[in-house]
Amino acid sequence: MERSPLGLKLPEGMRDLLPNELAALEKLETKALNVCKNWSYQKVLTSGLEYRACLEPDADAEDNLYKFFDQNGHVLVLRPEFTTPIARLVTTRLKNEQFPLRFCYSGDVYRNNAGRYREFRQVGVESIGSGSDLADAEVIALAVEIMRELDIKNFQISLGHNGIFSGLAKEMKFDAKLQKELENGIARKDMVKLESIISQNDLPEAAKELLLALPHLTGQEEVLDKLQNWNNILAIRRAVESLRTIYLYLREFGVKDYITLDLGILRGFSYYTGVIFEGYLPGIGMPVIEGGRYDGLYADFGMNLPATGFAVNLGVMLEQLEEFELETADVLVYGQSPGKVIKRCRELRKAGKKVEMAIDFMTDTDAKNLASSRGIPQVEKIENTRDPR
Amino acid sequence: MERSPLGLKLPEGMRDLLPNELAALEKLETKALNVCKNWSYQKVLTSGLEYRACLEPDADAEDNLYKFFDQNGHVLVLRPEFTTPIARLVTTRLKNEQFPLRFCYSGDVYRNNAGRYREFRQVGVESIGSGSDLADAEVIALAVEIMRELDIKNFQISLGHNGIFSGLAKEMKFDAKLQKELENGIARKDMVKLESIISQNDLPEAAKELLLALPHLTGQEEVLDKLQNWNNILAIRRAVESLRTIYLYLREFGVKDYITLDLGILRGFSYYTGVIFEGYLPGIGMPVIEGGRYDGLYADFGMNLPATGFAVNLGVMLEQLEEFELETADVLVYGQSPGKVIKRCRELRKAGKKVEMAIDFMTDTDAKNLASSRGIPQVEKIENTRDPR
Repeated sequence: MERSPLGLKLPEGMRDLLPNELAALEKLETKALNVCKNWSYQKVLTSGLEYRACLEPDADAEDNLYKFFDQNGHVLVLRPEFTTPIARLVTTRLKNEQFPLRFCYSGDVYRNNAGRYREFRQVGVESIGSGSDLADAEVIALAVEIMRELDIKNFQISLGHNGIFSGLAKEMKFDAKLQKELENGIARKDMVKLESIISQNDLPEAAKELLLALPHLTGQEEVLDKLQNWNNILAIRRAVESLRTIYLYLREFGVKDYITLDLGILRGFSYYTGVIFEGYLPGIGMPVIEGGRYDGLYADFGMNLPATGFAVNLGVMLEQLEEFELETADVLVYGQSPGKVIKRCRELRKAGKKVEMAIDFMTDTDAKNLASSRGIPQVEKIENTRDPR
Repeated sequence: MERSPLGLKLPEGMRDLLPNELAALEKLETKALNVCKNWSYQKVLTSGLEYRACLEPDADAEDNLYKFFDQNGHVLVLRPEFTTPIARLVTTRLKNEQFPLRFCYSGDVYRNNAGRYREFRQVGVESIGSGSDLADAEVIALAVEIMRELDIKNFQISLGHNGIFSGLAKEMKFDAKLQKELENGIARKDMVKLESIISQNDLPEAAKELLLALPHLTGQEEVLDKLQNWNNILAIRRAVESLRTIYLYLREFGVKDYITLDLGILRGFSYYTGVIFEGYLPGIGMPVIEGGRYDGLYADFGMNLPATGFAVNLGVMLEQLEEFELETADVLVYGQSPGKVIKRCRELRKAGKKVEMAIDFMTDTDAKNLASSRGIPQVEKIENTRDPR
């Protein structure tokens, strides 16, 4: 049945991948997954659809889940990320395994927002069951190792900790609205907004000072020293100690040069509880890596397990690639006798060649043109008389 | 936020894949795609979501599309198959390419039916732009080659042609309802139903004879001879000629032994117009391969291109596998000094080893037990004193 104009279009935010684009994406994906496997992360795959009841309680408002009803009236959603589905999987089918468990994954995720791409390929890892700083350092070092393996230059990882701001907020008993506003101001490094919120609320002098300092606390280890005055707040003291230890481990992992402490980053997903980190590339206005510790999520699924991990947005990296190479056939085989052409193709394939077989009549010129337009280096004509049968 | 019982469940028809299951599926997938690439089919990927206006006009009722509204009130669907999305892609972004084009694909498809699996992995090919019997023979031979490469024994491909029944239906001017009923009866080889439909309708003697014969016309080349009496109907004559030629080519491809002619198969998708084929495995009550010629679909997208192809349902084959192997780490490294453990892991990884690093304190017994439970063949303890720093 003939298509309407809409039937010829891709829905907004969707994307097709032509052979060279897909090959480039899969190359990135394979390399990233190989690093994960070498670090003993095993690949799992969760289903494409989940009940809303699984995802929504901890989803970000910004996720804009794609939702619809199933035949029983339950709301289903397309997966916007893998961390929560893997928590569902671990706490149901894998609860008797030996922890820590390390998993990696790769797949397309869907977010019904106004973004240019609402479907994109993610590769990521989850380290489940260990609350140690070493577990955090391992996943951060792994993220760096993946970027190196992908041959990506000039990336930087910003490392922060949710406990600093949330420790202050708790100590100062900020109400939820004020906390949200301050969080936004700090995360966006919007000093005008931040000062205006602070001036409108009657905050202790010391709190003001920290709130205005946080967006500027970026650099190497020395920024942690600037929080010494806050040692009396346990959550802040612990966050600083964790960051110090993790930073030390990252030096041992040989990845220190890629790390910048940034105490002003506050990741979106509501489930982060500890260290948080973001990876940036020059020229891309959004993080290509997002990760951190989320020690509360598994408890929501009935198991009290600490966990840490990250996801790499491969889709956005694909856009940055300038060259796409494409593997083509080694030889194009044509001729007037299909039987002989088939036979020759079988021989060549048996010998390990990639073969394109002509399936329609072709003149010599047709064959040459086709091979040259496709980049097939060799053309072989099968003469009718050469091999009488 | 704590999950309700529903939040811990997988939606009906969905499936998670644990590491060993996913590794097995990906092994099948990689092998299948490699054969396609060696035959010069290039891999593409279409988006996960399409406008209903793209898919529904030619979708099967049985597809039971997963549908929902986008933010502009258009209906989106999860892809139930790749053939139609690839037609959309070719007729928009690739219309100026040199045909024939050969594409392969791999991805999960979604069908909101009552089936056990409503999400499953498909690998398939499309050969676009050639109406030749050789094009059909190539894709059928390729389907056989994939099954061989997957080391699957005892599979059989049933080969039929839509033109026989549809030629008769047109000649006899069956109305749509009668045609549908007969189609169902023949496809299911339900002779009781078929006889009852025939007896309730006043059909010419000759038509009755063919309708009752079709479900039984299975075997090798000789079954085609039984249609000699129908040579006067052009569509039937052409279908028989095509099948004869394709059968001959399949012999040249060396795959004849896997092919059974079955003139009673009538594939579901409304877009098939010529040769149709289904691949079966013993013990699986549904086809694992479905394919055929569909010369009308591209015209619906504004380009008059013949095309042929097939899809393999890898998900259903996965269920048949009895053994799953899993790659594990080569060595588990543990010790009391994280710095030394990290250093040793780096060395081992540089040397090409897959390494699991202990991220929590572990006794020697813990380490041995963990390695043995995970099948990690080697354990290495890093002593504090061995490498003083």
